[in-house]
Amino acid sequence: MPIPETLAHPARNEIELAAVLHALSDPVRLLMVRGLAGALEGRSCGSFDVPVTKSTCTHHFKVLREAGVIRQRQEGTKRVNTLRDDDLEDRFPGLLATILQAAEHQPLVSEPA
Amino acid sequence: MPIPETLAHPARNEIELAAVLHALSDPVRLLMVRGLAGALEGRSCGSFDVPVTKSTCTHHFKVLREAGVIRQRQEGTKRVNTLRDDDLEDRFPGLLATILQAAEHQPLVSEPA
Repeated sequence: MPIPETLAHPARNEIELAAVLHALSDPVRLLMVRGLAGALEGRSCGSFDVPVTKSTCTHHFKVLREAGVIRQRQEGTKRVNTLRDDDLEDRFPGLLATILQAAEHQPLVSEPA
Repeated sequence: MPIPETLAHPARNEIELAAVLHALSDPVRLLMVRGLAGALEGRSCGSFDVPVTKSTCTHHFKVLREAGVIRQRQEGTKRVNTLRDDDLEDRFPGLLATILQAAEHQPLVSEPA
């Protein structure tokens, strides 16, 4: 049985700008974050229609978690992801909203219908 | 004599969000962009007090240019860098200002006195 991965999250005051920008500098991750905005209960990896394999999806969520962009919690066999929008807003006012707004006007990746 | 590198710049409408965020996701590049903000005449690589070698500095400016964040022009033996703030503002309103504001409150890299 594999050892469950510890879900480490940076504290609010440990969230770094460069890491957040790096996490959001990938079109698929931007798409995921856009999908999490407004999903208060969170979403699991499988609920995203993104053109990547499950392991790549898992990797992307790990990058987002380690940068402090999302929070991950284990619910049975599912890993549920929520946006840390309060923490990000406190740390970098307006940043996430501005980036999400910019992302709306960009063809990030082809989204399946 | 080395062949001079062509200084290719993306057109305004070719500037991509993911590329801009990637370009700004490095602490040294963030510091450089911060130094270019307000420097209307532009600045050369050598004018920055950044803790990197000249070739690394050149590389960072190339990443910024290719993402559409800065414009580079050759003036004699100097390469002068200016921020493409008008293009970025048109393409992604508020983005650069928000990121620069966030960067002000972050210790990016140790800046020599």
